[in-house]
Amino acid sequence: MVRACVMTAPDEPVEVRQLPEPTLEPGGVVLRTIYSEVCGTDVHLWHGRLAGVPYPIIPGHVSVGRVEATGGEVRDADGQVLVAGDTVTFLDVHENCYSCWYCLVAKASTRCPKRRVYGITYSASEGLLGGWSEKIYLKPGVRIIRLPPTLGPETFISGGCGLPTAFHAVERATIRLGDTVVVQGTGPVGLCACVFARLSGALNVIAIGAPRLRLDMALEMGADHAISIEDAPASRRVQIVHDLTSGRGADVVIEATGVPAAVAEGLEMVRDAGVYSVAGQYTDAGDVTLNPHRAINKKHVDIRGTWGTDFSHLYRAVQMLNKYRERFPWTEMISRYYGLEQANEALRDVEAGRVVKAVVRPGAG
Amino acid sequence: MVRACVMTAPDEPVEVRQLPEPTLEPGGVVLRTIYSEVCGTDVHLWHGRLAGVPYPIIPGHVSVGRVEATGGEVRDADGQVLVAGDTVTFLDVHENCYSCWYCLVAKASTRCPKRRVYGITYSASEGLLGGWSEKIYLKPGVRIIRLPPTLGPETFISGGCGLPTAFHAVERATIRLGDTVVVQGTGPVGLCACVFARLSGALNVIAIGAPRLRLDMALEMGADHAISIEDAPASRRVQIVHDLTSGRGADVVIEATGVPAAVAEGLEMVRDAGVYSVAGQYTDAGDVTLNPHRAINKKHVDIRGTWGTDFSHLYRAVQMLNKYRERFPWTEMISRYYGLEQANEALRDVEAGRVVKAVVRPGAG
Amino acid sequence: MVRACVMTAPDEPVEVRQLPEPTLEPGGVVLRTIYSEVCGTDVHLWHGRLAGVPYPIIPGHVSVGRVEATGGEVRDADGQVLVAGDTVTFLDVHENCYSCWYCLVAKASTRCPKRRVYGITYSASEGLLGGWSEKIYLKPGVRIIRLPPTLGPETFISGGCGLPTAFHAVERATIRLGDTVVVQGTGPVGLCACVFARLSGALNVIAIGAPRLRLDMALEMGADHAISIEDAPASRRVQIVHDLTSGRGADVVIEATGVPAAVAEGLEMVRDAGVYSVAGQYTDAGDVTLNPHRAINKKHVDIRGTWGTDFSHLYRAVQMLNKYRERFPWTEMISRYYGLEQANEALRDVEAGRVVKAVVRPGAG
Amino acid sequence: MVRACVMTAPDEPVEVRQLPEPTLEPGGVVLRTIYSEVCGTDVHLWHGRLAGVPYPIIPGHVSVGRVEATGGEVRDADGQVLVAGDTVTFLDVHENCYSCWYCLVAKASTRCPKRRVYGITYSASEGLLGGWSEKIYLKPGVRIIRLPPTLGPETFISGGCGLPTAFHAVERATIRLGDTVVVQGTGPVGLCACVFARLSGALNVIAIGAPRLRLDMALEMGADHAISIEDAPASRRVQIVHDLTSGRGADVVIEATGVPAAVAEGLEMVRDAGVYSVAGQYTDAGDVTLNPHRAINKKHVDIRGTWGTDFSHLYRAVQMLNKYRERFPWTEMISRYYGLEQANEALRDVEAGRVVKAVVRPGAG
Repeated sequence: MVRACVMTAPDEPVEVRQLPEPTLEPGGVVLRTIYSEVCGTDVHLWHGRLAGVPYPIIPGHVSVGRVEATGGEVRDADGQVLVAGDTVTFLDVHENCYSCWYCLVAKASTRCPKRRVYGITYSASEGLLGGWSEKIYLKPGVRIIRLPPTLGPETFISGGCGLPTAFHAVERATIRLGDTVVVQGTGPVGLCACVFARLSGALNVIAIGAPRLRLDMALEMGADHAISIEDAPASRRVQIVHDLTSGRGADVVIEATGVPAAVAEGLEMVRDAGVYSVAGQYTDAGDVTLNPHRAINKKHVDIRGTWGTDFSHLYRAVQMLNKYRERFPWTEMISRYYGLEQANEALRDVEAGRVVKAVVRPGAG
Repeated sequence: MVRACVMTAPDEPVEVRQLPEPTLEPGGVVLRTIYSEVCGTDVHLWHGRLAGVPYPIIPGHVSVGRVEATGGEVRDADGQVLVAGDTVTFLDVHENCYSCWYCLVAKASTRCPKRRVYGITYSASEGLLGGWSEKIYLKPGVRIIRLPPTLGPETFISGGCGLPTAFHAVERATIRLGDTVVVQGTGPVGLCACVFARLSGALNVIAIGAPRLRLDMALEMGADHAISIEDAPASRRVQIVHDLTSGRGADVVIEATGVPAAVAEGLEMVRDAGVYSVAGQYTDAGDVTLNPHRAINKKHVDIRGTWGTDFSHLYRAVQMLNKYRERFPWTEMISRYYGLEQANEALRDVEAGRVVKAVVRPGAG
Repeated sequence: MVRACVMTAPDEPVEVRQLPEPTLEPGGVVLRTIYSEVCGTDVHLWHGRLAGVPYPIIPGHVSVGRVEATGGEVRDADGQVLVAGDTVTFLDVHENCYSCWYCLVAKASTRCPKRRVYGITYSASEGLLGGWSEKIYLKPGVRIIRLPPTLGPETFISGGCGLPTAFHAVERATIRLGDTVVVQGTGPVGLCACVFARLSGALNVIAIGAPRLRLDMALEMGADHAISIEDAPASRRVQIVHDLTSGRGADVVIEATGVPAAVAEGLEMVRDAGVYSVAGQYTDAGDVTLNPHRAINKKHVDIRGTWGTDFSHLYRAVQMLNKYRERFPWTEMISRYYGLEQANEALRDVEAGRVVKAVVRPGAG
Repeated sequence: MVRACVMTAPDEPVEVRQLPEPTLEPGGVVLRTIYSEVCGTDVHLWHGRLAGVPYPIIPGHVSVGRVEATGGEVRDADGQVLVAGDTVTFLDVHENCYSCWYCLVAKASTRCPKRRVYGITYSASEGLLGGWSEKIYLKPGVRIIRLPPTLGPETFISGGCGLPTAFHAVERATIRLGDTVVVQGTGPVGLCACVFARLSGALNVIAIGAPRLRLDMALEMGADHAISIEDAPASRRVQIVHDLTSGRGADVVIEATGVPAAVAEGLEMVRDAGVYSVAGQYTDAGDVTLNPHRAINKKHVDIRGTWGTDFSHLYRAVQMLNKYRERFPWTEMISRYYGLEQANEALRDVEAGRVVKAVVRPGAG
């Protein structure tokens, strides 16, 4: 039997259960989980804020583990055969159909209606398909990435799901060499966005968030300036951004807050003809009021919603993470490790913002 | 002396005045006005809804006229020398500085703070710098386009300022061959957007507007479907668009209404990962409430504000207009011609939506 | 048994053979072939000019047929269930892996090393996987498009493989509304490129090719000008293009000739900072000599190679074809129909340029 | 009188002459030259390899100087008033017309036929319009950039004209976060391209050039790998690039060599569906032979010629240079300083590749 956390229903305590060992199909892989994580999305799932979640589920979408067994020859995305003992991660999104209109005509693979997500849209009755579990079963066709030997699993999980999410948000932002970039939000996605914005050629990166702990972290993770939402009200924050940009506003603003009001604020921070990449509104947290004349039309702005991630984001994020594993203090983002039994505590800590990154270590027993 | 309409102040009647003949500088051109127009912007100017207008002004931004005199050798944008009798139009935007950060670094020339606009941001005290006048003075450096011999001035003015505005909105929309395009609004900009969307490779063009007269016009101007806002409430309109697009929504939506609520409606009409080009919010007509989770983030949408026009839009629009002058019934958009004395009546007719296109004919005296 | 043409080896006569009926798998479809075609690529295959072809093969990559049987419920790309009697076409490219670096990271699906092509890279020993056959077997997962009821199979096959190829070349060319476009080559790809360039917003389309028959056809298929390579040498052709473009050259040039020297000529035809889309060099027909200073660097040109097609190109091409089925005389491109026994004659006719489009009608037998 | 170098005619020795003091017009600026440079283009000018050069000229296109006098109030590009003593550089390109088809319709400002270049296309008879002179006269409208106080003139001139040229080449290359980038050439442009590729998010940068001195420099300037053209023939260099990229080739290749054969080699180094930015073929050094099937069509490659620079490139390059002035050993690129009398020696040193960067110091007497 395998010990795993099960989120049985919205607003119910997560339970640790004994679940059956996975049945290995040809092309499948059994992982022994090293780390998974608790992110803001898990808190939203806990409160039932995302439509279409088939409770009970095993949470944990981005994880890292050690290959225990493979169903015959299984290869990673670079075509290398996986062997027992390899340290790997995998794209949480699976079952993209590549046969629907969205996949084939629009080429908007993150909007494929068939896609499912480990730790979110798989039911616990379907198997060990979430990371808060001693083992994870990778179904045939799951896209696997072997971590480079130089890249420890702690480093990887410290970025966690923030890595591909921020990577995608930064890709959508099309930062140009010399741009000033504002990052709204200093959670894991925002901190990773600071790094990737910096690495994409930003001249200046301005992080906006709270608390002080995370702002200090942002300054270590690529930000040149950090503005506290605790110290400065929205109008003042907008003013500071303008002061830092010769009065024009930032070339690019990346939203990673999850707070609807941030969208109106971000549009005041972006310069005319700039780009606003909106990545943080992953769940429905309410409405925002905008003036379309001033905020959109006259501003000649590009606003780009960013939904989900695809394999390229995770793949490239891992490569960049490995390259710059020493330039940024990645693992300092990890505030605390939690055993499976501590899952409810971890959820509460994330919800309260008491931690930057909460890591689940199922093997800690 | 030259007879010209002067808008003296917001909400005051437009007056016909006798103004001095222009003084021709080297590089300047005096035009005898053939036609100018009354567009929705003029109504907004009349009500003082645009900031920074130096009343009194001579309204009329897009016009067509005959060259009466040139200050030495003056060339059009193709490098041809202009001679008396040539029928020309010109870019209403002038004095782009090409030396500021917006012009040179951002290359966002429509956001240059130095740019001024004939008929809008020039004061009547500065000269005959608006089209509701028997003559127009083109200052040195104004970008002039000679109409091709095959293109009559009626055909040009029937599109009028809708031509470059719609051209720019369509350019920002990056329509791909085979896209379904919704155009919100069936005023001159919307109707021109239907034409340019059709000519850009749209598979289907769906026009949404009122009254019936304009919707019928839209069907002649490139639209395949016309939805009346008088017959169908917003939710029904959204449903019709989804029904016409296999339930997905349109690949591209172009906003040309000036009504804030249209922005929320348009975002419900665009498909996931589609494009929304917002061109109609030229003046501040209030706010709109959006749900950033559903309308932006999860939709993975691109929203693109479109401000102003540059020379390329007018130049290419005139070329396409000339090419397709017989395919579309351009001049049927002209509902009525007005003499200078009838300017107030024209403004009221445009405001009430009693006309599609109101043309000012100063020579009609 | 099923009668089918088999190309046994390079430069050997094509033979008509009796092959076994296909075995229908779940998800597979048996088509009764209505039409297939003989295109320039088939001539190249006949002469062994493409690497990696597993002779013997059944040629015919783009075809149209009637559904005879399906292996259970099979759906087209729009999700509709296929039933016997439906008239369908399909993407000749199959087995894209969507798991390799090219598919997932580069998102360059036409460069996936796993992809295979009906009529080209499937061996006759693998089944009825080419169109010069009374029946075609669509393996599970083949992307199928049902022709709209308004679109006859003759109209579809008149465009044939030229439709998606030209669509892709035009997509790569990023034509802007008002551009002047040169199309080099007046074979089926070139003619379809004229149509799609026209529909993409070209102001002027200039076709260059031979013989007169095809040039006349080009003028019916969207070209405004036709330049004969029989009447004018290369330098003269370049001069004509410059004369038609105020001395600047065309904004966009699309190569659809297969002749290496055309690439040097096309680069002289494109204006500075223009776009050159190279689609016709599908097989190795030799080298070309360029001056990189004049032809690339100083010209500030974008040269874009276009390899293969994906589903979006075929899907959208069919939709546009159906929309504009009456504007252009599509079926006049069909010079002659051939039965299976006449395959060698068809190949010789295509090679000699005696026909615009050679259609194979297996049922004519 | 002002001492200045004059290149009187192709292949004649450069002479030091006494020229008249500049006459300051309103809006003009007189600079006392701190540094100018000798680049590969100057060698080409010396040998008459560029068309349209109005000998005699004062060479030196990119320079840095101290403001001696201004003709009234003159502002830099950020709108700040210049005062005597300010250390500034300026865009060597001047007189872009912003009224021709290339400027206004194509928005390809580097192809404006009116543009002129300090040190290249201005004659010595027109004034002190080149940097190899004790003073430089900035005509009214020249785009001026004040160096930030933290950025010394040595640091600026060590990049020199390589800064905007490489910046533009890298911009055209559209490097994506995680790309592998090959830079062909390790002269000043190539070395700056290594820096800007690194700063744009390249995962790996591979420099190819010679001699060892420059390759070592490349490894300091952002390259991860350096391949010597002295040690490895072209086929071997291509092989090494493939070995470093899982056999695929580089995502992006940037050409900065000036050698025609490098274009064929670069196309073998770029992966399928990659990008090749060609910036080094600034003068006509002969032809290259390509196979358009393999090198363009089947490769599905984007080849982008890069001509000249505009203000945005210099402006942003200076900002990035200042930001990263300490990360890279910029001034180590300067091999030697030359007085005006040593100009011929400097030209010979550059031609022979004996120096990385040759700096002219007119004040050194």
